[in-house]
Amino acid sequence: MQKMLRYGMVGGGNDGFIGRAHRHAIAVCERAVLAAGCFSIDQKINIQSGQRLGVEQNRIYTDYRQMAQAEGAREDGIDFVVIAVPNFLHAEVARCFMEQGIHIFCEKPLCFTLEEALQLEDMAREKGLVFGVNYGYPGYNMLKYARDYIRQGAIGRIINVNAEYLQEWMIDEVGQGEQAVRQLGTWRSDPKKSGPSNCVADIGTHIESTVAYVTGLKLTRVAAAMDTFGRPLDLNANILVEFEGGAHGVYACSQVCAGHYNGLVLRIFGMQGSLEWQQENPNVLTVCKKGQPTQTLQRAAGYITGRAAMLNTLPTGHPEGLVQAFANHYRAFMDAIQAIREGQTLAAEDMDFPDVTAGVNGVRFVEACVKSNANGGVWTPV
Amino acid sequence: MQKMLRYGMVGGGNDGFIGRAHRHAIAVCERAVLAAGCFSIDQKINIQSGQRLGVEQNRIYTDYRQMAQAEGAREDGIDFVVIAVPNFLHAEVARCFMEQGIHIFCEKPLCFTLEEALQLEDMAREKGLVFGVNYGYPGYNMLKYARDYIRQGAIGRIINVNAEYLQEWMIDEVGQGEQAVRQLGTWRSDPKKSGPSNCVADIGTHIESTVAYVTGLKLTRVAAAMDTFGRPLDLNANILVEFEGGAHGVYACSQVCAGHYNGLVLRIFGMQGSLEWQQENPNVLTVCKKGQPTQTLQRAAGYITGRAAMLNTLPTGHPEGLVQAFANHYRAFMDAIQAIREGQTLAAEDMDFPDVTAGVNGVRFVEACVKSNANGGVWTPV
Amino acid sequence: MQKMLRYGMVGGGNDGFIGRAHRHAIAVCERAVLAAGCFSIDQKINIQSGQRLGVEQNRIYTDYRQMAQAEGAREDGIDFVVIAVPNFLHAEVARCFMEQGIHIFCEKPLCFTLEEALQLEDMAREKGLVFGVNYGYPGYNMLKYARDYIRQGAIGRIINVNAEYLQEWMIDEVGQGEQAVRQLGTWRSDPKKSGPSNCVADIGTHIESTVAYVTGLKLTRVAAAMDTFGRPLDLNANILVEFEGGAHGVYACSQVCAGHYNGLVLRIFGMQGSLEWQQENPNVLTVCKKGQPTQTLQRAAGYITGRAAMLNTLPTGHPEGLVQAFANHYRAFMDAIQAIREGQTLAAEDMDFPDVTAGVNGVRFVEACVKSNANGGVWTPV
Amino acid sequence: MQKMLRYGMVGGGNDGFIGRAHRHAIAVCERAVLAAGCFSIDQKINIQSGQRLGVEQNRIYTDYRQMAQAEGAREDGIDFVVIAVPNFLHAEVARCFMEQGIHIFCEKPLCFTLEEALQLEDMAREKGLVFGVNYGYPGYNMLKYARDYIRQGAIGRIINVNAEYLQEWMIDEVGQGEQAVRQLGTWRSDPKKSGPSNCVADIGTHIESTVAYVTGLKLTRVAAAMDTFGRPLDLNANILVEFEGGAHGVYACSQVCAGHYNGLVLRIFGMQGSLEWQQENPNVLTVCKKGQPTQTLQRAAGYITGRAAMLNTLPTGHPEGLVQAFANHYRAFMDAIQAIREGQTLAAEDMDFPDVTAGVNGVRFVEACVKSNANGGVWTPV
Repeated sequence: MQKMLRYGMVGGGNDGFIGRAHRHAIAVCERAVLAAGCFSIDQKINIQSGQRLGVEQNRIYTDYRQMAQAEGAREDGIDFVVIAVPNFLHAEVARCFMEQGIHIFCEKPLCFTLEEALQLEDMAREKGLVFGVNYGYPGYNMLKYARDYIRQGAIGRIINVNAEYLQEWMIDEVGQGEQAVRQLGTWRSDPKKSGPSNCVADIGTHIESTVAYVTGLKLTRVAAAMDTFGRPLDLNANILVEFEGGAHGVYACSQVCAGHYNGLVLRIFGMQGSLEWQQENPNVLTVCKKGQPTQTLQRAAGYITGRAAMLNTLPTGHPEGLVQAFANHYRAFMDAIQAIREGQTLAAEDMDFPDVTAGVNGVRFVEACVKSNANGGVWTPV
Repeated sequence: MQKMLRYGMVGGGNDGFIGRAHRHAIAVCERAVLAAGCFSIDQKINIQSGQRLGVEQNRIYTDYRQMAQAEGAREDGIDFVVIAVPNFLHAEVARCFMEQGIHIFCEKPLCFTLEEALQLEDMAREKGLVFGVNYGYPGYNMLKYARDYIRQGAIGRIINVNAEYLQEWMIDEVGQGEQAVRQLGTWRSDPKKSGPSNCVADIGTHIESTVAYVTGLKLTRVAAAMDTFGRPLDLNANILVEFEGGAHGVYACSQVCAGHYNGLVLRIFGMQGSLEWQQENPNVLTVCKKGQPTQTLQRAAGYITGRAAMLNTLPTGHPEGLVQAFANHYRAFMDAIQAIREGQTLAAEDMDFPDVTAGVNGVRFVEACVKSNANGGVWTPV
Repeated sequence: MQKMLRYGMVGGGNDGFIGRAHRHAIAVCERAVLAAGCFSIDQKINIQSGQRLGVEQNRIYTDYRQMAQAEGAREDGIDFVVIAVPNFLHAEVARCFMEQGIHIFCEKPLCFTLEEALQLEDMAREKGLVFGVNYGYPGYNMLKYARDYIRQGAIGRIINVNAEYLQEWMIDEVGQGEQAVRQLGTWRSDPKKSGPSNCVADIGTHIESTVAYVTGLKLTRVAAAMDTFGRPLDLNANILVEFEGGAHGVYACSQVCAGHYNGLVLRIFGMQGSLEWQQENPNVLTVCKKGQPTQTLQRAAGYITGRAAMLNTLPTGHPEGLVQAFANHYRAFMDAIQAIREGQTLAAEDMDFPDVTAGVNGVRFVEACVKSNANGGVWTPV
Repeated sequence: MQKMLRYGMVGGGNDGFIGRAHRHAIAVCERAVLAAGCFSIDQKINIQSGQRLGVEQNRIYTDYRQMAQAEGAREDGIDFVVIAVPNFLHAEVARCFMEQGIHIFCEKPLCFTLEEALQLEDMAREKGLVFGVNYGYPGYNMLKYARDYIRQGAIGRIINVNAEYLQEWMIDEVGQGEQAVRQLGTWRSDPKKSGPSNCVADIGTHIESTVAYVTGLKLTRVAAAMDTFGRPLDLNANILVEFEGGAHGVYACSQVCAGHYNGLVLRIFGMQGSLEWQQENPNVLTVCKKGQPTQTLQRAAGYITGRAAMLNTLPTGHPEGLVQAFANHYRAFMDAIQAIREGQTLAAEDMDFPDVTAGVNGVRFVEACVKSNANGGVWTPV
């Protein structure tokens, strides 16, 4: 029987969106309780957040280093920590908790350089720790079914990929020049806080990780046209991609596309058929066998089989959303932790969450795109 | 500051869908913990369920009457109970916990007869208890916005309503005759377990409650054509409706419509415009001012104001689902409980959850439809 | 080999929409040329219209009676006449040309009373003339496929029908009272010009004729709620229907639904599956076998067989529109004329256009609805 | 008043799709009649086609050169000729009729080399002839409105373009090798018949011409990845594009994308808003002002103004299709011819059809893509 785990959170105070999303995802797993936290550098927010969430007073920490040590030392210390701090702190916080033997679930991006990413990957392996990185979209049920569908050969060899992630929210950044100070955009446009890329790193990597998950294809080269519109970092990018085996595709990502909110869309084309999935309508998968009518598949319908069929928390037609996608990853992540506690090994198939290697691949993809773009859009190895 | 509440659950064991949905909804409120339960009449399932959910051993009860008494007597007893047992037990369990001064959140239908429904309503009022009934669909953010939109006169006086709730799952019941024993359908086709109606009671009432919530219109008469296809109870119904003021509409509900899973769809037409909402794509609301282009509104977008704007847990384009809809109701429900604890009164506007009166109206609607149908479809007062 | 036919037109001058639609439909058949006409009672418009359309001067007639006689007498007189005059003149003009042995293609409604409709039906039969009535929507290819699909038993016995025809254009008529003079609405609200019904007669009958075509079901009873909103004639109607065999359905028609332009939508539900078709996206048919994914079928795709496959003028994905739907009917209509000329009989299957009997059925449906509504919505035989 | 023109057709016999589409488009203009033709090199088909279409016997020609001479010499000779022969003959036939002073409407591509294209452009200018090239998609009403919308600044400066044209029909060509003989594909894969490109030339150029029409942007550079899958010519291409002013975009075209039939889709993103149009649902235009709800605009609605409002042949909600799009071009083309006949000059604004320069641009685009691809996808000037 599953044991109720304990977890901690660094960041996520003041009702910030992403920290809350992690907590909700864990909550609907009904397998772990929030036991400790360091929710904000603002201590008032930190304490209020902890109290509101029912964390005991002495486990609301003023400093994440202190938290790592104290929790690492407790008999009933946290099993894993959720890292939901600003991007430039991810690596440091992760190292700190790994030192104490605490498993990690970290927001993306993992970090800013491939070198550091590989170090984190090594450290997790050496310490035998489970390390999730929140490339959360493959958590959606219908993408699990899509992956199985492709693996079973239902669409044949993949010959073209068309994927995009379009948003509108930074459109006012366009043409504002360096001086403009729009709060939201500012740190996103600051290489120190955001790393070498804004748009490709923030959402382009979601395309990369989601396509990789669904298709199993290895990306070999990219040719990127990234647009900064006068800002330090990119707000828009159109990227040609090439996969092992020679198939091509295009990844379009943008934060300046009016009318698009969180428009991650995948279209995978094979010799025998195709499939399409849209994040904003995630309970549906569209498939088409060549020469046949297009089919609309619904989550949890009787014809959905395999892993996707095991993850439903609601019947067909009762919408699941992003929280359930994240939860699907957390379940596998906690299975992996429990397996370690019980001295067992989880089957590769069941390690179904984005791990530190997914995080490394994200960093690798960003580096290749930035390099291609800097060199006039030349094809660049990933 | 909000206090963390304690709640109990009757039913919902063995990972049943609806009990789980309630727990998840409460979990994402981050305001209450599961402290007690009587999850199943099968004691093995009961105990396993309680343990898995982290309930203390001595608060996993073998009998709901015992649970009501014990929890009513505890200093740290549960603040409210979620009732997720089969329909015919709803009223009895609710009375039992109300006797102990425990607030109620009950699955629908409230009960089978108007008389009993009104008694429950009276009892809740007399005891000063908060009583929610899970007509959960108005919990969706975009329906809150729809309600405000109509209230503000944006579509003018309502002149036509077209609403439906179409499902497929009982299609194999058609023409099976009385003897057929299809597990799923059996109790749905048994008047003792399901009351005087199956389809109208199960999903037709969701149309009624959701339209009532969104439009504020009072239903005055119905003319119903209910189809049993040889079974004891209805599987399909087409119902003409009339509202106070004389406007007409049609409610179509069915459990035998191939290709439809949980297809609650509302279309409300006014003199100045219209709106449409589909439960299976709930983060979107379509509105149209007469003579203008149709607009697609997205949950959490900047132009969404009012109560709907306060309830978001995820940004625009990040799908919320049924759990968040239920959670929106639970938040208001818990606000009401907390207000009582603090000797305050909640503004009517903030009592934004389906209460026992919504439950009464559901029973009333079913009675009128059944009567109309029995009398050859004649217009019948509600 | 097909002979090029000659046709005349009564009405349709001044570039009126419906006359033009008829001419375009005939033009794309490439089987008939416009040889004569009486396009308007305004002689300036009449002559200009005829000249612009290339009609010889002496075959532009000032009066339709004169036209019928002259063309009936000519060796090279017109084979058929298209009647596109105001509704109240349809019957009179039709009789006039039938007297001269000229085949008829008449706009709907055929006339205002069942008695007159039956007389026209008799006259056509007695004179052996081909008589089309422009219930044009079944002309769409995908409805021909839908009909075949149902005939072949693909969705099983029909158990529910949900059809609608929603428009917005008369919304400003609501609540205007008798005195209001809105040009467009005025004759539509005048029983002398429009007959006993406006909305049901104008568009409700399209639902009736299209459902009848696709399903082959005979309508037995209706229960109608028609809304006049203070005008002499109906602008909105919700109608329960019953078919031979006992299945029920609902027909909703309205000219006051903001955001809807020409929204004829059919949804037919059977024991084994369902299908849906929308006039505003007519090249697509949605079908669903119970328990299976929903399929989207495209006009002219390889899997489309039968009559629908023979009528394509453009490949898949190249939109055909209303003109092609009308043309499909005109082709069969002209086949019927040619068969008569050659002393042959067309197979019933090939008489695939709405004939005078479809016109009679339309009148019959209107009469039943009007009667039901007048009697408080009681079920009324059709 | 408009004069009824006479036209001839080269090709288009045997009921071939594209010739028929031209004839239907001209027919619904009600401004020209088919007077002469050389419909096929197969004389039986040629004669049958001419007879069926009502062409006089002595104007059904066995050879297009003879036809050009004879018609050029007649008093009542054709005003223009429609060229619907295989691609490699377009230029030759066009020259032949231009020699006789006959206006030209030619299928695309204009020819295979830029040099020849420019010669044709020169010849048309020198002879003062109207020369249309059938890049037909900008003929759709809603693209005319889209163009005006952008011109009026409604979406601001364009910052990103995402356009595609996806088809499925050549999917079986993938991986077939040189020897495979699939009738349909064969000439498409034969550089002698198809020119230097198949997919980019056939449908990629439609993206180019349609985006150019709607945005008014000049394309400056392309970086193309074209996939032949072992065939002589491309079946799939993903192309990065750059416009004057520096904005980027992506054009994806393919004939091997299962589930797509004629999927031309344009999405244009500006600093103030965006618009989207899909050829398979052409009566609708989706627009979005930043920060506002997405709007769905319908052809012929009251809010549609400008040139788009003048071209409707059917009311809102009554689908127009590809024939009407072509017809819109033919109307402007015939206006231009008539203006010349009357010694007038048409305003640039009214020369609203794709002319020989559009044909030149198509050839130019293909050349740049082929060159880029041959050089490893390097950015290449157009």
